[in-house]
Amino acid sequence: MTAPILEIYGDLLTRSKKLVVLSSAIGILHWDMETKMPERGLEQRSEQLAVLDVIAHQELVDLEVAKMLDAIEAHKDLGSLDQAKRRNVHLFRKAYDESARLPESLVADLSRQSALTVAAWKKAKGAQDFNLYRSELARMIELRAQAADIMMQVKGTRTPYDALLDSYEPGMTADRVTEVFDGMRRGLKKVLDKIEGSGFEPDVSITERRVPIDAQRRISDLAMEFVGYGPEGGRLDETEHPFSTGYYDDVRITTHYFEDRYTSSLFSVLHEAGHALYEQNQPPAWKYQPIGAAASYGIHESQSRFVENIVGRSPEFLRYMLPRLCSVTNGALEGVGLEQFVAAVNLVEPSRIRIEADEVTYGMHVIIRFEIERDLFSGRIGVDELPQVWNQKYKDYLGVDVRHDSEGVMQDTHWASGYFGYFPSYALGNIYGGMFLDKMEQTLPDWKRGVEAGDFAPVKNWLVENVHRRGNLYDPADLVKTVTGKDLDIGPFLKYLDAKFSAIYGY
Amino acid sequence: MTAPILEIYGDLLTRSKKLVVLSSAIGILHWDMETKMPERGLEQRSEQLAVLDVIAHQELVDLEVAKMLDAIEAHKDLGSLDQAKRRNVHLFRKAYDESARLPESLVADLSRQSALTVAAWKKAKGAQDFNLYRSELARMIELRAQAADIMMQVKGTRTPYDALLDSYEPGMTADRVTEVFDGMRRGLKKVLDKIEGSGFEPDVSITERRVPIDAQRRISDLAMEFVGYGPEGGRLDETEHPFSTGYYDDVRITTHYFEDRYTSSLFSVLHEAGHALYEQNQPPAWKYQPIGAAASYGIHESQSRFVENIVGRSPEFLRYMLPRLCSVTNGALEGVGLEQFVAAVNLVEPSRIRIEADEVTYGMHVIIRFEIERDLFSGRIGVDELPQVWNQKYKDYLGVDVRHDSEGVMQDTHWASGYFGYFPSYALGNIYGGMFLDKMEQTLPDWKRGVEAGDFAPVKNWLVENVHRRGNLYDPADLVKTVTGKDLDIGPFLKYLDAKFSAIYGY
Repeated sequence: MTAPILEIYGDLLTRSKKLVVLSSAIGILHWDMETKMPERGLEQRSEQLAVLDVIAHQELVDLEVAKMLDAIEAHKDLGSLDQAKRRNVHLFRKAYDESARLPESLVADLSRQSALTVAAWKKAKGAQDFNLYRSELARMIELRAQAADIMMQVKGTRTPYDALLDSYEPGMTADRVTEVFDGMRRGLKKVLDKIEGSGFEPDVSITERRVPIDAQRRISDLAMEFVGYGPEGGRLDETEHPFSTGYYDDVRITTHYFEDRYTSSLFSVLHEAGHALYEQNQPPAWKYQPIGAAASYGIHESQSRFVENIVGRSPEFLRYMLPRLCSVTNGALEGVGLEQFVAAVNLVEPSRIRIEADEVTYGMHVIIRFEIERDLFSGRIGVDELPQVWNQKYKDYLGVDVRHDSEGVMQDTHWASGYFGYFPSYALGNIYGGMFLDKMEQTLPDWKRGVEAGDFAPVKNWLVENVHRRGNLYDPADLVKTVTGKDLDIGPFLKYLDAKFSAIYGY
Repeated sequence: MTAPILEIYGDLLTRSKKLVVLSSAIGILHWDMETKMPERGLEQRSEQLAVLDVIAHQELVDLEVAKMLDAIEAHKDLGSLDQAKRRNVHLFRKAYDESARLPESLVADLSRQSALTVAAWKKAKGAQDFNLYRSELARMIELRAQAADIMMQVKGTRTPYDALLDSYEPGMTADRVTEVFDGMRRGLKKVLDKIEGSGFEPDVSITERRVPIDAQRRISDLAMEFVGYGPEGGRLDETEHPFSTGYYDDVRITTHYFEDRYTSSLFSVLHEAGHALYEQNQPPAWKYQPIGAAASYGIHESQSRFVENIVGRSPEFLRYMLPRLCSVTNGALEGVGLEQFVAAVNLVEPSRIRIEADEVTYGMHVIIRFEIERDLFSGRIGVDELPQVWNQKYKDYLGVDVRHDSEGVMQDTHWASGYFGYFPSYALGNIYGGMFLDKMEQTLPDWKRGVEAGDFAPVKNWLVENVHRRGNLYDPADLVKTVTGKDLDIGPFLKYLDAKFSAIYGY
């Protein structure tokens, strides 16, 4: 006799809780490693993470899990499960298959090769010599391709690269990304041409004024207060590269202060707080369940960029913030006018480095990486050709000359770590964000007036209600459709850019 | 055919590593909970700790472990294992038996009751009402007694209380503690009488001067620099109650700053750094093995008290430190003379609160707790009599009147948590420390001259070489015998106290 389906389902949720709890503990150890750990603690920490990763893996691919999933999926009462329960089963099955179907030797090889390739990447980047990186990267790609081949079978995607894409953006395919990005490239080019044609040049010197770190810490407080990200459920620390991490009631962010670039940290804090709000506002009832999590990397990025760019770089937010910045920086910003300030933090300029790119050109950096990844995994290009292909695309799409591979093909760590298929999520985040904005403005036409008065609550509540509270109930494309009623469309994002920059650049 | 003994032994060490690594990860999560965690993170953290505690328990009591231990212990080549290897097997066997022989239901009951009793203790302490605590404490004692009965069988101790003692101070018995403490009580009383008879009263107002927290942080830096506890392998944070935690290359300490008691943090930092040095200087070759750990709670306490009291409260250290304290406190300590300062930080005065007690009366507080514990577990006294017995002993041994149970029997959290048998370690630490000092002075007769010049290295090296580097190779009594050539003896500690306080109090 089979056990009642809800009983088996309950067992599955119990296992889910254990896995999520383990993963959140691992998250704290990672956070500590980046923020607080004494330097000599690294060896011990690696051992801790290795042990916990193995335990988490074993808890997931356990035979008991397979039995539970099989029993539920074959159960005569399967139809009695509601949408949320069915989604939990689906997500658990997917996670199980992705982990269980990869041979343990391949998992170990990937983990080892990732460490080797990152080490080679660091060395090569320091030496500006792609040759020191090439063979380790080739091996990484080879292993990742092996995994992608297996994943393609498991997931039923058309190509191995689609299987990789699906890990970050479930349901997304290279064909769809190509189509969307083609439209994005043309649209961004148009906006960029208008901006360049305007002849207007923002005075960036005002964002280069020296602001002591202590004053910048008070700026962070202002930003967190505005967003409503507080110490009851989070904290801010300082790291080399800003990041956010955590789950529900304990979501932490970091920033990096540069004395001569005070806006860098301000926008980092807004960006990371955007990520944090998404995690903090997952549905309480879904805690420890597969559906109580972000829908995808792209949706996550949409939330961070919404707060950083759509809100944080808006003239209205800057109008609210400028006098406050002046008052906590002891005269460092004296005489800075609002219009001047808005233009400076919205400078658009083709550049070589993705993480320093503005809202308009950012997408171009991502398109370049996507096209290269896609062609690498289809065999259209080889590792040896990477620098040349990279440089040519930067010339074609952004009109810039890459001077050496450290500011070219070796600028990011993603590929060294084996994260192929990740980059598109960054640009998809912008596109999703544009669609969310478009929808939000139908119910909150005056949202900017609130922001101007320091009131972020209506926007935040809209995001919480429409995006955060839906957790991982849908694949990203379905989530976007549920929220906006529309299929993926670059239109709203381009419209947003054009309206914003025509005002700033006066074209 | 049996596998070669070294092969099975190797498997045992692999398991040991996994257990130690898990335990160090759990340690980081505890540290984070006390120092950095957002307040709302508690629920999630409890889940993380519960999951990891269960996993660690399962890894220890696993059938595979029993098989390995049995196979080694019955192996024809058992005699070929050297002392360190045999000790590893012994310690692993002991840990296994202690965990595996307790019924899981009792372990769960103890864990649950501990939370309940601590909660009741907090409430009762706040309300100054022992009755709110009594029944939960009685239940805690009952469960702990059940566990002690089982442990007595496993360990072959004479009484259940001896089995508890053995968990903190392996090999120690109540009879032996009684004997040693009787001598300690008489000896401390003599020193106390002389001090009180001297008529000298230190001017404590100079340790009550207001020193801003920022200046006190610089005092902490001075203390850590003196001890040689640096950021490469540790860190200092602020918590309600100071503690130290960690393993080998990542050992962290905390302190608490009081504006009107700047010496409180100074001595906390020295105390915790003493603990930290012990952990940091375990033999590198023994990392992740049972022998690569502290020998006992008492030995641990001997190291912290050595640094805090024997070194830190010595006139020589204070002579070195005072001008430096003056220079980082911006005139707050102006006019403080050395002799005055030495006397103030060495004030001896019977009091009601253990954690505020001085070097002389501290032992009395511990004796009181030990006698009560011993009598509770032999059934000589009952829970209802606790307040009255407590107050009477404070009157008899220290001559103080306890005004209410919150400053009496409810002042410590140990019993609420179920830590019976723990208290004696505190006083044993003093006794061990006295013996170590006696031995050290034979090879380092001039150690105080080094300290006076800010050179702690010879003392530290002596402790590292003689105590730390022996890890958990011996039970504490054997360790002390190995280091000093003598059996446990209160003599050296009393001699140290008498010499020190006769100089300060001029008796």
